[in-house]
Amino acid sequence: MVSSLPTIRFLQQPTSSAWVEQALANLNTILLDHSHCERKAAGVALNLMFRYPSSAKLVRMLTAIAQEELEHFEQVNQILERRNIPLASLAPPPYGASLNKQIRREEPDRMLDSLLVSGLIEARSHERLGLLATHCEDQELAKFYRALMASEARHYGVYWTLADTYFERSLITQRLEELGAIESQILSTLYPQPRIHS
Amino acid sequence: MVSSLPTIRFLQQPTSSAWVEQALANLNTILLDHSHCERKAAGVALNLMFRYPSSAKLVRMLTAIAQEELEHFEQVNQILERRNIPLASLAPPPYGASLNKQIRREEPDRMLDSLLVSGLIEARSHERLGLLATHCEDQELAKFYRALMASEARHYGVYWTLADTYFERSLITQRLEELGAIESQILSTLYPQPRIHS
Repeated sequence: MVSSLPTIRFLQQPTSSAWVEQALANLNTILLDHSHCERKAAGVALNLMFRYPSSAKLVRMLTAIAQEELEHFEQVNQILERRNIPLASLAPPPYGASLNKQIRREEPDRMLDSLLVSGLIEARSHERLGLLATHCEDQELAKFYRALMASEARHYGVYWTLADTYFERSLITQRLEELGAIESQILSTLYPQPRIHS
Repeated sequence: MVSSLPTIRFLQQPTSSAWVEQALANLNTILLDHSHCERKAAGVALNLMFRYPSSAKLVRMLTAIAQEELEHFEQVNQILERRNIPLASLAPPPYGASLNKQIRREEPDRMLDSLLVSGLIEARSHERLGLLATHCEDQELAKFYRALMASEARHYGVYWTLADTYFERSLITQRLEELGAIESQILSTLYPQPRIHS
């Protein structure tokens, strides 16, 4: 699945070194935010399954994603516990809400946009966890982030495959260009609070 | 966990034989509704994790429940697929909405009521899957329902344990009496559409 992806440009601009510096200087907060991201990703997959209950392939593939996100959520929470970082709520950065605002409200546009926005978020998570895996001096964390990267790549592959199942290829690539430009634009200014998507 | 439960009266009235007859006469619909129930149960667990992100024990125990409900969801969907029953939406019976209306809106009452309502639904599911396991002549289904019963019992045990973690025992038993009476009342009239909670 992933092998067919290099031609698909999910991310238009790479993450800045300013984000890497901010994240490395605030690893505890990044870990806590990461926990929230995994739970939210499971929630997004589940919500799509609720919204499209008769789309069998979507239901099957997103069930697997939701399960995997919950596993990761549990793994991050175990790391938080070992490091005595208490679970706590954390104000989200504007990234998710800004992207969700781009989702058109009428079907079938809504389904296409929802799948592509989820794919973009997974692709960005994959890129950023990869940066943490490379630059983080804490070996336990670096190893953990490396282990997650393969799943994140599979996840944006799944969202791509689902878009490709229900929509014309030309329609997808055009909309992905538009949403990808917006996604990179949102991240072009570093959000002052350290987050996975700051 | 479950061994401490017999003193706790989740269900005040047993399911009527009219429900068993209705269910056995409409097993395909019951299977499809069961799929929706598993997905909804995962959603409920996830929503509680969203609402109480700093309650570590709740987050940990409900992560496990959400994972298990998703596994069951997948198992039911595989049975549906083998039987050529297409995934489709299905109007829910009034049971869930009627129970949710009983959840008080102010914390900490809201948390207590949410945990007890979830426990009641799991307890009723456990009872009814048990009835299907006993009375269903289709051996594949009977075996499947038997296999799920242990989990459902564990699930209402978890909701009980969580209530017991965050609230006074006397407060819980009193509220459970009230909610249990309402739950049995809702089911005292058979809903005309065959559902797990008709």
